[in-house]
Formats: sequence, C-alpha cells, structure tokens
Amino acid sequence: MNEWDNMTIAGFQRQLAAGNASSLDWWAACRERIDACESSIQAWEYLALEPTVAMPAKDGPLPALFGVPVAIKDIIDTQRMPTTWGTRGYHCVAASDMDAAIVTQLARLGALPMGKTVSTEYAYFQPSKTRNPHDTRLTPGGSSSGSAAAVASGMVPVALGTQTVGSIIRPASYCGVVGFKPTHGTISTSGVKALAPSMDTVGWFSRSVEDSCILFSLLTGAAPVRRLGSLNGIRIAVCPLPSTPPLSPDVKTAIDEAAMRLTAQGASVTPLRLGPVFDELVTHQQVILAYEAAHALASERIRFGESMSRPLQALLEDGRRLSLERYWQSRQAAEHARHEISAHFTERVDAILAPSATGAAPEGLDSTGDPLYSRAWTLLGGPCLNLPMHRTSEGLPVGIQLVADRFKDAHLLAIAGVLMT
Amino acid sequence: MNEWDNMTIAGFQRQLAAGNASSLDWWAACRERIDACESSIQAWEYLALEPTVAMPAKDGPLPALFGVPVAIKDIIDTQRMPTTWGTRGYHCVAASDMDAAIVTQLARLGALPMGKTVSTEYAYFQPSKTRNPHDTRLTPGGSSSGSAAAVASGMVPVALGTQTVGSIIRPASYCGVVGFKPTHGTISTSGVKALAPSMDTVGWFSRSVEDSCILFSLLTGAAPVRRLGSLNGIRIAVCPLPSTPPLSPDVKTAIDEAAMRLTAQGASVTPLRLGPVFDELVTHQQVILAYEAAHALASERIRFGESMSRPLQALLEDGRRLSLERYWQSRQAAEHARHEISAHFTERVDAILAPSATGAAPEGLDSTGDPLYSRAWTLLGGPCLNLPMHRTSEGLPVGIQLVADRFKDAHLLAIAGVLMT
Repeated sequence: MNEWDNMTIAGFQRQLAAGNASSLDWWAACRERIDACESSIQAWEYLALEPTVAMPAKDGPLPALFGVPVAIKDIIDTQRMPTTWGTRGYHCVAASDMDAAIVTQLARLGALPMGKTVSTEYAYFQPSKTRNPHDTRLTPGGSSSGSAAAVASGMVPVALGTQTVGSIIRPASYCGVVGFKPTHGTISTSGVKALAPSMDTVGWFSRSVEDSCILFSLLTGAAPVRRLGSLNGIRIAVCPLPSTPPLSPDVKTAIDEAAMRLTAQGASVTPLRLGPVFDELVTHQQVILAYEAAHALASERIRFGESMSRPLQALLEDGRRLSLERYWQSRQAAEHARHEISAHFTERVDAILAPSATGAAPEGLDSTGDPLYSRAWTLLGGPCLNLPMHRTSEGLPVGIQLVADRFKDAHLLAIAGVLMT
Repeated sequence: MNEWDNMTIAGFQRQLAAGNASSLDWWAACRERIDACESSIQAWEYLALEPTVAMPAKDGPLPALFGVPVAIKDIIDTQRMPTTWGTRGYHCVAASDMDAAIVTQLARLGALPMGKTVSTEYAYFQPSKTRNPHDTRLTPGGSSSGSAAAVASGMVPVALGTQTVGSIIRPASYCGVVGFKPTHGTISTSGVKALAPSMDTVGWFSRSVEDSCILFSLLTGAAPVRRLGSLNGIRIAVCPLPSTPPLSPDVKTAIDEAAMRLTAQGASVTPLRLGPVFDELVTHQQVILAYEAAHALASERIRFGESMSRPLQALLEDGRRLSLERYWQSRQAAEHARHEISAHFTERVDAILAPSATGAAPEGLDSTGDPLYSRAWTLLGGPCLNLPMHRTSEGLPVGIQLVADRFKDAHLLAIAGVLMT
C-alpha cells in the first residue's frame, strides 16, 4: 500500500491544483506498481511506452481527468496501440484506423491510456493469461479479466470493460473492485468489437463509487451524481435472477450483510419474487447471444474459424442454426420483461439487491467462472453495479450487485455512494 | 432495356440450372451497363476490377445468390475495396481489416460485389456526386445515393443501403426502386460506420419485391416469405407521420392510387390518426440522432472536424451540447410510442400506408431532399418498404411507403408482393 492506492480522481485534482503533484505522477506510480506485479498478474496485453499527454488549453481549467491513468480493454480499438481482441495472436492489428469513440473521449478529458488489458477471446468465454490478484491460482473472471485485475492490484485506478453476459460484474466481484455497467446504449460502442450488440455495453472498473460517479457524468454529459445524506426512504428489493438454485453460503452471507447495512442507513429492504418468465430470461439471453454473435462475428469466423476456441466455435455454430423467428421470440420476451420490471421499479423499488456471481473466484485458469447471475440483468438492460463488501473466511472478495431500472443510473450510483461510505 | 433489366434472382437461378447462363453473365451485363451510364450517373465510389467468385461446394447445390451482382454502400467495410465513408477523400482507407459481417454473408451466398456505391458524408446529409437516373439535374436522394441510383439505372440488381433518418426510403422513392429497411437490429451492423446506433439499420434496394423477399430470408435465417393469393382480410391504415403539413398533390395522388389498388386487391383501407405524441417523434428523432452521432463520431470529429461539411459539424456540435437526461427523455418517449403503436398494429392494422418523401426528387445536387416522412418510422423501428408505383406528369417516380410493426417484416413483404403483382 502507498499513498496512490487510495487516490481518487477528485483527490488527484486537488493535489494538482495545490501544486503537490505533477501531471505524470499518477502515471509513474502506476508504472511502478505494474513493474512490481505484472509478471504474476498478467493483466496487460500491451503497455503504452510513454504517456500521451493532452495539452490543456492555456489559462483554461485542467480537463477533468487530467493525468488520470486508464486501462483500455483489448477489444476496444486504439490508434497508437495494437488490438488483439483476446485472440492470442491469430487476429491482431498493429494499429486501428481510428480510436474507439470512448478512447477519444477519455483522451479529450486528459486521461492517460496506460495500455490494453487482457480480454477473453472476442469477449466471450475462452480465458487468457490473467490471474486473480487475491490468489494467482484463481481466475480473475472474464471477459474483462485484465481490467478487473489491473484495478484490483493497484496498477491503474480506472479501467474500461464491456459486458454482454456478465463481463464487468463477475470479474469485479472476483477481484473485489467496483464495476459499473451503465444502461445499455449509454456509452458509444463505436470501435468496440461487437459480440451481441443488443446487449454489448461499455462500462468500467474503479476503486471507489465516487470515481465511478465522476466517470459517469463526464463520459455521458449527465449532471453530476448528487450525494444523498442517507438512505431514508430508499426501497431495496432482494431478488436473485434466476431465482433457483439456492444461493451458495458465501453469497447468501454477502447479500445478508449488504441488506443489514442498507437497513442501518435507512433503506427498507424487502424480498421481491418476480414471475417465472423472469427465470426464462437466462435462456432468452443465451439465444440472443448466439444469434447476434453468429451474425456479428461472421467475418471473423470465415477467416479465423479454425483458430477459434471450441466454446466460441460452438456458440457461433449454435447461432447459425437459429432462425430469425426464434431469435425474435427471445427479443420480444425480453421486451415484455423490461416493460414489466419497469413497472415494479416505478411503483415500489429504487434498486434491486442481487448476487454478482455464484461465489468467490473459482480455482484454475481454464474458466472465468459462471456468469449466471448477470444474464437476466444484462438482458433487461438497466444499470448494474458490483460493490466489493464481503470477504470469505479465506479472505476472498464476494461482491453484491445493485441493479436499477433503465435510465436510473445516477440514482443507483447515488444509493451506492451512501452504502459504501 | 435488355433481357437483364427484368432479371430476378430466382430467374437467374433457373437460367443457371438450365444451362442457359453461366455464373459471370449477370456480372458482365451489369458491367456493360455501368460502362454505358456511370459517367452521367456517378453512382460508384469504387468499382471492383473483377468478380470474386466463391467456389461452390462440389456436387452441392449452388449457393442461393450465386452470380448475383451486389453493390455495397461506401460506409460498409470491405477488405478488398477501399472505403471512404462519403468523405470525398479526407477519410479513406485502402482496405479494412475485415469485411463487414453483411459483406461476408453475401459472399458466402455466392453474390458478386460489384463495387462501393456513393454515400453522403458518414451517411448524414452532405451530398456527393451521384445524380438521379430519371433526370441528372435532380438529386437521387441520400444517404444511400449511389445504391439507389445504381439499381434504378440497371447497373446492379441489388444494392446494400443503410437508414438512420430516411436514407433508404427517400432515395428509393426518388429513384423509383424498391427499398427495404428491416426491423432495427435485423442485419448486423458489424463493420458498418455508426451514425446513430439505436436507429442505424442495414437494408437494401432491389428492382422487385420478389428479390427483396429472397434477400430477407437468406440474410436473416427467416423462413421464406409466403405468397398471399390476395389481400382479402388485410387491414391497411393510411397515416402520414408527421400528420402536418398537408401532403403535396403528387404525394397525395400516389397515396390515393395505392389505396385504390390495395382496395381492389381485397384489403380494407381506412385512415388512422395517431395522437400528438407521434408528431413529436420527429423532434425526438433529431435529438437522438444528434446525441448519438456526437458520441459515435467523436474520433472522426477530432481527426477530421475541419474537413467536415457545415451540416455535419453543426449536428455534432448540437449533439455535444445535449445532456444525457435530454437524450434519455427522447429515448423514453420513443419507447412509449413503440409500445402504443404495437397495440394499434396488434388490434387493428396489418400495415400502414404513408408517404415515402415530400414529393418527387427535387432539383439540384446541393441537397438530397427532405427525410421528413421517414424520421418517425425509423425511430419506431419497424420494417419500412418503399414501393415505386406512381409517376408525376413529368414522369418522375413518387414512391409510397408501407410500414409494419416491429418483427412483422415477412408479413409486410408478403402484402407488398401482392400489391406489386
């Protein structure tokens, strides 16, 4: 631990303003940490050789993320760094024609791209090399494996990720960091490799809810997230989706602890049981994923099909066999569920408390773990937040997930801000 | 006119099967037409030097689009042809890393890419060089200018286009061809330059509804579109959106003629008046377009902003000034309207009859015409079809638009199939 491990974006801005830090200090501290632990964690696919500093306007205020190091998931195009899409070399471009839109936005805000963080293959299931910083025998989760591990090990304060199934919430839970998936469609996916566009969502990992709030407002043009004094009047519903099987003991404890803290801060916490159609969302999510992936990755399959992992090949084969009618049936089921859950939220729920994952990070690097508890929420499209609150008796993080209705991202972040203080 | 001008996909397959045509005949006929009229029409940004023929499997049946020439709109990535995104050179790549997914799908089906057809700048409003085949003093419409003009002049039987505002329906109307925009999200946009992803839709131009039906089924995995014997029992509602100003005389005549033909074929045709919130969709469409374009084209703006046309610069500036809250307000309004119009369709309407454009193609190449009558329908997300039925007293085409509920593409195409026979 050093002074940089608890540094926040706002804290760094204050240091800069007071003349106690210079623009490259945070970058240098991160590089030092990377030098110390990258060989064991292997979070990076590529490291930028030197910081690219955006020159601030003369006499103007510093841009809001000036000097903040950020990691870019390796399925996101970068003009000055290679992209491999987690393919371990069979698909690699030395430089993209354009930076992804979100990379340009971060640069305009003064952030410093530190490098490209490891992704599973095309952001689907096949793991790469990254290890869990809490125990290198464990998976960090996926697909945003490197981004979660880099933030968890202090190599960078902020990292971009994407979620189509559970690729932000699960690794955030396994690695013990804040992970935020905004409402679908909030952050531009221009220059981000598509897997299943109706669910692909750009989000990020951070060390604090506070930093996540700042990023949300800066990257979207939303008003600053207001700070709540307490959770008085906030209605929380506990609702794992799918509703079966029963939660594992570690996850149940994590949820119970979170419920207690929420209650202590003034919120009402009640169970919510959604109808059986909500359990079917897991299947619909799989159908939509397969159909859209088979179409979105049609060119990659033709060129690199033989190099692809078996799970990815199987997904694309499954998708090719699905008719449009079957796909649309699942899309319509998802829409009905979205409509129904919006009514729940509007009438009686501010946020839902749910598991982030089926337990702590499993052992081994052959799998990135089970995304079961993210499938339905990702399909429903609302904002999802992993909060690192609980540790198992072995000291491993088990996160809890807070979910809100679509377009209620700021309210969700505000609630989490109170919970985590 | 020659035998190729009325050739259909199914007709060519029969010729091939009977040994009356060889695989490159259609391509050669198209090249001949291109040589004859490209200098006056200027539909092409790039012409493929020779056909890329997919080798059919030994002893297997020929792929379904074997030997069918297709044009690819210039905002769609191609690995073997340059892409300029309608920028007239300020943004140009000699070859993309990957073919867009839809290009690979067409190639797998045996289609022959003839070249890249002219687009307006990044598929927004700034026109390029293409002229209307019916009168070269007139605009062909946009943004899919080259694709519409190429099909209208017989240079190619099928051309890919995209629609975010009115970029398929309007040029199809001005050029007098069939234009089809499927339900949003039906065709993968992987490798297609994003303008406003929640509305960007890949579709196509063809000479007949029959060919459009074949493409729909082949490219999506849908069942073949069934043929209806008549329109008995089919309920058509006449509903221009927006509902004001009054239709121009040419458009009114086109709608009236279509209504008469529909009635003659057994359909019931009644007026439908939607509430004032539907007229507001035009404004919501503009807000969503500006916000999403400003985010999606953030990198292009940083690199090429000074070369961009004034209308595009203005759009991106407008979008940058919009808050997330304002954008989401329009997204939610669109969703409510989608829900409401679905109820109309389910209860009492098979298809809506509406104008495709405000009139025949206007004179001059400085503008691609007014997309007014497409904005709301594009935002609502359902399938839209331009049918070339009427001609003005000067002989210029004025199309009519048929619109159906989302996911009812096959039903819409089936209705149009009867109407056009």
